[in-house]
Amino acid sequence: MNEAPIDLLLTADRVLTLDKQNREISDGAVAVRGSEIVAVGPATELLSRWPAAPRLDTPGGLLMPGLVNAHTHAAMSCFRGLADDLPLMTWLTEHIFPAEGKLTGEIVYHSTMLTMAEMIRSGTTSFCDMYLFSAEVAAAAAQSGVRAWIGEVLYDFPSPCYGELENGFSYLDQLFADYAGHELIRITVDPHAVYTCSPELLGRLHDFARRHDTLYHIHLAETQDEVNGCLDKYGKRPVAHLDDLGVLDGRTVAAHGVWLEPGEIDLLAARGVKVAHCPESNMKLASGVAPAPELLAAGVAVGLGTDGAASNNDIDLFGEMDMAAKLHKINKMDPTVMAAPEVLKMATTGGARVLGAEDTIGSLEPGKKADCIVLDLRQPHLTPFYHAASHLVYAARGGDVVHSLINGRLVMKNRRLLTIDEEALALRLREIQARMAEMPT
Amino acid sequence: MNEAPIDLLLTADRVLTLDKQNREISDGAVAVRGSEIVAVGPATELLSRWPAAPRLDTPGGLLMPGLVNAHTHAAMSCFRGLADDLPLMTWLTEHIFPAEGKLTGEIVYHSTMLTMAEMIRSGTTSFCDMYLFSAEVAAAAAQSGVRAWIGEVLYDFPSPCYGELENGFSYLDQLFADYAGHELIRITVDPHAVYTCSPELLGRLHDFARRHDTLYHIHLAETQDEVNGCLDKYGKRPVAHLDDLGVLDGRTVAAHGVWLEPGEIDLLAARGVKVAHCPESNMKLASGVAPAPELLAAGVAVGLGTDGAASNNDIDLFGEMDMAAKLHKINKMDPTVMAAPEVLKMATTGGARVLGAEDTIGSLEPGKKADCIVLDLRQPHLTPFYHAASHLVYAARGGDVVHSLINGRLVMKNRRLLTIDEEALALRLREIQARMAEMPT
Repeated sequence: MNEAPIDLLLTADRVLTLDKQNREISDGAVAVRGSEIVAVGPATELLSRWPAAPRLDTPGGLLMPGLVNAHTHAAMSCFRGLADDLPLMTWLTEHIFPAEGKLTGEIVYHSTMLTMAEMIRSGTTSFCDMYLFSAEVAAAAAQSGVRAWIGEVLYDFPSPCYGELENGFSYLDQLFADYAGHELIRITVDPHAVYTCSPELLGRLHDFARRHDTLYHIHLAETQDEVNGCLDKYGKRPVAHLDDLGVLDGRTVAAHGVWLEPGEIDLLAARGVKVAHCPESNMKLASGVAPAPELLAAGVAVGLGTDGAASNNDIDLFGEMDMAAKLHKINKMDPTVMAAPEVLKMATTGGARVLGAEDTIGSLEPGKKADCIVLDLRQPHLTPFYHAASHLVYAARGGDVVHSLINGRLVMKNRRLLTIDEEALALRLREIQARMAEMPT
Repeated sequence: MNEAPIDLLLTADRVLTLDKQNREISDGAVAVRGSEIVAVGPATELLSRWPAAPRLDTPGGLLMPGLVNAHTHAAMSCFRGLADDLPLMTWLTEHIFPAEGKLTGEIVYHSTMLTMAEMIRSGTTSFCDMYLFSAEVAAAAAQSGVRAWIGEVLYDFPSPCYGELENGFSYLDQLFADYAGHELIRITVDPHAVYTCSPELLGRLHDFARRHDTLYHIHLAETQDEVNGCLDKYGKRPVAHLDDLGVLDGRTVAAHGVWLEPGEIDLLAARGVKVAHCPESNMKLASGVAPAPELLAAGVAVGLGTDGAASNNDIDLFGEMDMAAKLHKINKMDPTVMAAPEVLKMATTGGARVLGAEDTIGSLEPGKKADCIVLDLRQPHLTPFYHAASHLVYAARGGDVVHSLINGRLVMKNRRLLTIDEEALALRLREIQARMAEMPT
């Protein structure tokens, strides 16, 4: 056999593919050429095909697809722990909004870079972001080598980033131009929510998303207040309101989806809308429990999101999986709800489906992008080892990830980041912290 | 000033005392002599008092009291992930009970040692254990240098450890003799629960606990089935049943306390009963949500427990704090419930009160035992830093702990365990895993 050479051969004690057959391979390997996976199989087989390939061996390691964060605000890491445990409106109006008023593109860039460091260190290789100064978010993601779907949030009010609404469209046009064909970054269209966007803006942005053939990412039915406000203003619940505007379809990513009635779940399923489930943020802000089991049962694509660090307060999808599994069990008083394998899918293939990227990421398969992480299983809290999904959901944490490869590029090796200067970053964050702490907290 | 020498001076960027004034000291230090803390204050002050003292400096570190795990079954680590997501009775009768039938003293010893490694690595310095073969549990705790309250579980049936019930009392007598005056280990008296212990046994064990002046540690009101079964059998709910037997008092540690009515909470408070709150296990097994906020409001001492690794599936009290804070917020639909400082207290001073050890552990104060941990704050997920309690509850994880000192003895330095041979332990656990995996799972 005369094989074309590969760039990297990863081997580990266990390879968890999360492919359709849910193959687990003992003493397995993944072969990477350029940005893609070209083979997945037993290490002995791949080693005989590519005996001279550069290798990254992890004895005691578990090799799996990188995790997908389906909804976050990466730059909010600068507000991590600034204020907690407050009534929602007090938290927003007295702490978060004033702090956001201090944001600049530079702060957003460094804060996003901080989150890129946290994501890589905790096994996330793709994320879907909605925030301000998104050109800076995109620059930080591209610089750190993390795969991202990034949008600038739009609403009826002037923005700290682009000013008047009309500028928002030109800001987005520029972003689409800058990142056309980029190997890691996709630009999305992000109306904030039904309570901050007029029906006209919601419709116009959907046209805009269609024209750019991209995702339409919106907060939907996050709180009971949002539902009540929508009923007051439009005489309809948020889902009906959006459906009547014609903006619910396969490009719609609904973040949160907490206050959904059975008929609304069916409608979301019928329209092909995807949902980003954010249990930790929903719990911390006491927003409610999203009907994630019902959405999954209805066939809706459901991914897992951390939301921003201000309401979580970390960006670790391993912890998010644990919380998701346990929240739904207690909410239903049924320990069989949200079994570990199902939760693991939400954070991988589910997230990929939410982003319309099921053909490129979420599992380890030839032809998919080489987004892989390796966990070190040789630790007390991961011993003994009976079932991979159980450990990944209930016992592992981001800190157990030792290597991360995104788009074929090694971004972390033995817990050392290869694309981010953490010391320089820490200094920048110290300045940002000082500026934020000047405000009353 | 002619100061008596000290054995160790710990310094860190921040010292969180959790004393009554809740003092936080920037550039602080703790002086340790023998097993005790002799001074807590600014590093400059303590350095001038003891300029020649051996030092452990942690730039970027947060020094705080070690965490207290108020209810666990340490040896159940050998069942971690063996079976999950099953109905409670299926899980117990088809998986856990058959696996427990395979237990030997040797398996319990090594499995407990595994949990000692996990506890030290995740910042726990004290734990309260109820299990089988508790002589082996005590031996492992003593060997690894972890402070422990340890009891042999007793019930109406023969035990895999001591056989017939009467042997249980002599087994315990031997334990009390072996550990009399031990600097780390206290023996407790542990009736399993109201549904496994006759009223006679419950009363007799309470006399026994009183005679040995120790804790009476019992599972109480964990599930609705337990309450219904007690009503069926005795015509009373578990709390009334125990109270009528005269076994509720200041030495009673009630594990779980999920199904408690307001009058029962008042009674527990009046009797001075302490509660070990185990949110992760209660969620994973869908047992219910314990009224921890109400217990705290009633003045009951409440600590935080992980329960065993079979129903959690880790023993990381940092994750447990996060889950506790978020569970109660969503359960009450109120983000102000269980604020971070209150949750942090449960895992430290609260646990100390549960164990009747509020004068010796739980906070950093002169005269208390030197049980201290140091976290490394220089990590993306702990950046920026505004409030210590927020970070410790919502963002930190066990893996952030770098040093641990128990009873003045350094048991982990720079994440290297000093009292446990982890490689040898891993080999033993591989054998145990193979034996457990032989069963149908």
